[in-house]
Amino acid sequence: MTDAIRRHDPLVKGFASDNYAGVHPEILQAIALANGGHQTAYGDDVYTEALQKIFQEHFGPTAEAWPVFNGTGANVVALRSMTAHWEAVVCAESAHVHTDEGGAPERSGGLKLFTVPTPDGKLTPELIDRQAWGFGDEHRAQPKVVSITQSTELGTLYTPEEIRAICDHAHGLGMTVHLDGARATNAAAALDVPLRAFTTDAGVDVLSFGGTKAGLMFGEAVVVLNPDAVRGLRYLRKTAMQLASKMRFVSVQFEALLAGDLWLRNARQANAMARRLADAVRDIPGVEITRPVEANAVFAILPRDVTERLQKRFRFYTWNEAVGEVRWMAAFDTTEADVDAFAAAVAEELSSIS
Amino acid sequence: MTDAIRRHDPLVKGFASDNYAGVHPEILQAIALANGGHQTAYGDDVYTEALQKIFQEHFGPTAEAWPVFNGTGANVVALRSMTAHWEAVVCAESAHVHTDEGGAPERSGGLKLFTVPTPDGKLTPELIDRQAWGFGDEHRAQPKVVSITQSTELGTLYTPEEIRAICDHAHGLGMTVHLDGARATNAAAALDVPLRAFTTDAGVDVLSFGGTKAGLMFGEAVVVLNPDAVRGLRYLRKTAMQLASKMRFVSVQFEALLAGDLWLRNARQANAMARRLADAVRDIPGVEITRPVEANAVFAILPRDVTERLQKRFRFYTWNEAVGEVRWMAAFDTTEADVDAFAAAVAEELSSIS
Amino acid sequence: MTDAIRRHDPLVKGFASDNYAGVHPEILQAIALANGGHQTAYGDDVYTEALQKIFQEHFGPTAEAWPVFNGTGANVVALRSMTAHWEAVVCAESAHVHTDEGGAPERSGGLKLFTVPTPDGKLTPELIDRQAWGFGDEHRAQPKVVSITQSTELGTLYTPEEIRAICDHAHGLGMTVHLDGARATNAAAALDVPLRAFTTDAGVDVLSFGGTKAGLMFGEAVVVLNPDAVRGLRYLRKTAMQLASKMRFVSVQFEALLAGDLWLRNARQANAMARRLADAVRDIPGVEITRPVEANAVFAILPRDVTERLQKRFRFYTWNEAVGEVRWMAAFDTTEADVDAFAAAVAEELSSIS
Amino acid sequence: MTDAIRRHDPLVKGFASDNYAGVHPEILQAIALANGGHQTAYGDDVYTEALQKIFQEHFGPTAEAWPVFNGTGANVVALRSMTAHWEAVVCAESAHVHTDEGGAPERSGGLKLFTVPTPDGKLTPELIDRQAWGFGDEHRAQPKVVSITQSTELGTLYTPEEIRAICDHAHGLGMTVHLDGARATNAAAALDVPLRAFTTDAGVDVLSFGGTKAGLMFGEAVVVLNPDAVRGLRYLRKTAMQLASKMRFVSVQFEALLAGDLWLRNARQANAMARRLADAVRDIPGVEITRPVEANAVFAILPRDVTERLQKRFRFYTWNEAVGEVRWMAAFDTTEADVDAFAAAVAEELSSIS
Repeated sequence: MTDAIRRHDPLVKGFASDNYAGVHPEILQAIALANGGHQTAYGDDVYTEALQKIFQEHFGPTAEAWPVFNGTGANVVALRSMTAHWEAVVCAESAHVHTDEGGAPERSGGLKLFTVPTPDGKLTPELIDRQAWGFGDEHRAQPKVVSITQSTELGTLYTPEEIRAICDHAHGLGMTVHLDGARATNAAAALDVPLRAFTTDAGVDVLSFGGTKAGLMFGEAVVVLNPDAVRGLRYLRKTAMQLASKMRFVSVQFEALLAGDLWLRNARQANAMARRLADAVRDIPGVEITRPVEANAVFAILPRDVTERLQKRFRFYTWNEAVGEVRWMAAFDTTEADVDAFAAAVAEELSSIS
Repeated sequence: MTDAIRRHDPLVKGFASDNYAGVHPEILQAIALANGGHQTAYGDDVYTEALQKIFQEHFGPTAEAWPVFNGTGANVVALRSMTAHWEAVVCAESAHVHTDEGGAPERSGGLKLFTVPTPDGKLTPELIDRQAWGFGDEHRAQPKVVSITQSTELGTLYTPEEIRAICDHAHGLGMTVHLDGARATNAAAALDVPLRAFTTDAGVDVLSFGGTKAGLMFGEAVVVLNPDAVRGLRYLRKTAMQLASKMRFVSVQFEALLAGDLWLRNARQANAMARRLADAVRDIPGVEITRPVEANAVFAILPRDVTERLQKRFRFYTWNEAVGEVRWMAAFDTTEADVDAFAAAVAEELSSIS
Repeated sequence: MTDAIRRHDPLVKGFASDNYAGVHPEILQAIALANGGHQTAYGDDVYTEALQKIFQEHFGPTAEAWPVFNGTGANVVALRSMTAHWEAVVCAESAHVHTDEGGAPERSGGLKLFTVPTPDGKLTPELIDRQAWGFGDEHRAQPKVVSITQSTELGTLYTPEEIRAICDHAHGLGMTVHLDGARATNAAAALDVPLRAFTTDAGVDVLSFGGTKAGLMFGEAVVVLNPDAVRGLRYLRKTAMQLASKMRFVSVQFEALLAGDLWLRNARQANAMARRLADAVRDIPGVEITRPVEANAVFAILPRDVTERLQKRFRFYTWNEAVGEVRWMAAFDTTEADVDAFAAAVAEELSSIS
Repeated sequence: MTDAIRRHDPLVKGFASDNYAGVHPEILQAIALANGGHQTAYGDDVYTEALQKIFQEHFGPTAEAWPVFNGTGANVVALRSMTAHWEAVVCAESAHVHTDEGGAPERSGGLKLFTVPTPDGKLTPELIDRQAWGFGDEHRAQPKVVSITQSTELGTLYTPEEIRAICDHAHGLGMTVHLDGARATNAAAALDVPLRAFTTDAGVDVLSFGGTKAGLMFGEAVVVLNPDAVRGLRYLRKTAMQLASKMRFVSVQFEALLAGDLWLRNARQANAMARRLADAVRDIPGVEITRPVEANAVFAILPRDVTERLQKRFRFYTWNEAVGEVRWMAAFDTTEADVDAFAAAVAEELSSIS
């Protein structure tokens, strides 16, 4: 272990992704407390049982939480449970489920996606209508679920009212709504509303609730808000290889995150750091902030050589090679000092052009 | 959290399954050490890199380790990587991949299994031949992989020579061999040989290496011993929803397990406790040990009412309802005191009949 | 065309399979009559509409017929419509769906099969119980459908009472029953009962009704006897690539087969020729008839060199290489002269040994 | 049969689809000639063998033809054979494989599609680049195949040079090219070039060659032009339920279509009738021809009430409900009289507005 540990500098942080961060200390502590003795495997443990009440406090009395391993797993299990074999999912072209899951929905879930280009990663009733048609025609995969992401892959937010409008529209068409909430806590913090405001209360049927980016070691949950919208979740989680044997260690992490306000503290910190970064670089000549900074992501266009030099000092990703757009993500563990050091580096690299 | 913690008695242990146990303290400690700072997500971290060398020390210089979340995931990813879309897997009828994975191989992997009844969970060249035929006939799914389990679901062991015979036979047919090693460490400890003796050195092509039952919180690894036997593992792990974002926490657990002798200590303890249990109950009138106790499982037939009363005091499973056979598993954390208390309970409940 | 036609000797017939035969002339004539003008594609034509009534006359007023291309398609579509994603099918190990469909059920249908060895290709309630267990346990694919074949792949027949017992048993377990009737007409003719006697009246829920082996050019039908047992057939037929565009030409063939007694004449002829063949060779020294000749198949063991010489004169398959068992199938176009010539050849080749 | 026949008026033709037409008489005649006697099932017959040479005459000496049942089957089998489990297909958003196959590619083939909106149903190297990226990144399904349709779903044509540019571009990216040629004969006739001009000679790797719309009863063929671009076709056809048992009757139809010039006569007739129709209605006030009439489709916008009245007299489909666009297809059996009667009806219905 020495070798890896020696090469791991815990002081190094970057802006590549909120899952480059580690585990929040309170989560680690909870894991340690749950260790010891035997607990029934596969979710019949006291932690998973207790978790139901905690999720219900956040999402209302009908909520059921099904812990899984990761976000792709949560999305595939959720969407599978919401669709029959011949039904399809309408989502934004930029949706994670379409672009970043290696085709898992299609290959491992047999799901059909209908995508819609969007300017800002957000669907609207009008955009949904571009794909939500052909009901009853066996030649067309039957649109059944609208999947939206909150906060979106482009760092933008839906208001609760916008989600309500989408849900009303979808339900009017006989469809249901899935929300990919890998960053749902960032959204709630940014909107300054409870988690249920843009989920349960807005009419969302099923939620992929993100834990990993919020500070867990691993773990997401499929949260069913409308039990009539799903079928066979117990079995689908298993067939999707997402049933953890020592599940107490997933559940206790969620408990530590959600029983108190850790989720909110973490999300606020990440969001605040993204805003701080945007504010710090916005007026540096040569930096163009390209999208609204509404949660914990900052998108910007920089000169390519500046990007290259910066990437040697800090990890972050180029988002759109064609236009030189980069993405900077703040995490729960990003500090003001991290941001300031990075902003200074941006200024420095840009000033050195000539 | 209080509620669950209050109901969790860390002194309670049973004999239901080796994944009812928690995490070995050295593993927890390693996790804590790996926390802090940022590490590249999805496996590009220093821990996952270091892991390769550790696996190579156990399995030889061509070994490649691909950490995944769980055993079903490891098996599906491994078998997928070893088969084209039209190829099939020959396994024992009692194989975990057939009976205990909810159909994940077929549903999420599109795999076809040909099963063979076996007396003791072990395949032989002769048994393989019952399904390994029809090569070149498009009406028959093409047998391509033999999948064996070591130690088996019935607590039995293959000798290295038996596995070598299977591998030679399979290779002679143009097939490859997968070993489901969810309990590979128990097997090595019981056989008193290195892990490679019945894997790499016996001709096995790909291994599902179990970590969870060996003392990890979660984590298994697809270990490729023969790179020519697989295709597309990098992508298949992702499409099977088995790519952890904060992968350093899977890898560092394996490091803690495998860099020293923790794997061996844990496996020896579990095996010894199974033997101790078998020895303690073998001569109690009314107990019939039904299978050889070769690793960490004990199978026995008890009067049904005795089983029922015992199950109120200790968790364990009925294996075969029809004949009243039960299964007792020892784990790395099973102690002599645990075994003795349980054996005493068995004696007590049996003596109270009449 | 000349080249192929020149090499096609219409006088050559063999005993390889009932789908080596061509199309019955009355079927061809019906096709010609249905040609001309436009008919709505994909099943909204007058022939497909008329077909419903014809199937209802055979199978009762709740029957719905869904024409498909071939037998594998019929089985996969039927079984898919009868199972949720996490449910499984129990069938004989010798079932066509397991051994002869290249893994289509698993690969294209995502189906999980649990197989049971049988002595004669026939399931019984007791044999079903060997796999019909684990209800409610997410680790086990949930047994939902029993699939039986009539007449079986081994040329044997279920009596209506035997099927009734299977259906009662399955229904009692909350399961449904599928009958692979690729040779259902041969069975009805052999049992001398209407088609519904061992299907609708015996409690079968869904039927794959075979047309190709009964004298059609191509075409099978999924026949739903219990509408509550299926879901989404309209869509599943399409996603299984089994929806013919010019469907009138499938439907009109079935009309020609089933509106009158063509199905019965064809089946009786094939069955009678199988019996005639069995009777003709049974007493030839060196021939051992190995299975009851109940429909249109004859299984026999011959000396291997005799088989080889015979196969140079007539096409037929070796069924079991290990014991030298061969299969001889009679078709609707097999004549007494064909049988007598073949039986004479058998005698001749056998007499020439020594 | 009488009932359906009585209701089938062979004089009624419409403009709904080229698969509302029946079978060309020369095809029926060929089928009848191939009947009689026994032929080896599943493609080992003399007709299927002879077919290879015929396809090679059209597509060059490396061409291999694999007959299948229908167009969806041809596309799924072809694309499956061209992709590994983790690879994806780039196609136009209007591609049949995306919009009209009920999700068969995803559900039964496990395929992932990346779609690109196009103005006219045609891809270009630039449009392909919108999705052909992310090579080597396991988070993105790996773009491997470009699938184009000729003639397109919008009635437009690629020139051979345009296809050559696409193939060169795709090959430069390490991708291969599939052409959905459900109406390839219409394209060749319209371009007045041999079939190979825009397929083999332009660099296309695999072709779905359409027979049904060209005058067959049923039957399409996967035609491999570059054998290095495919894997496992023999098995994939079977697992996709597309292997006909009495295959001689698929093959002999193709022989009749392609050995002489029937394919060209049929295609020219359909194309000419589409042009005749467009010319006849183009100047009628109230009719707006919306797309170039390059093959056998005419797209037009009409007042909605006119469309409704016309649809009571002739079958055709509304293509785009939102703008009132309709599609009129000419078939091989569409006559000048059919077109003139329909054009007169269009004029009549439009003149009756007021």
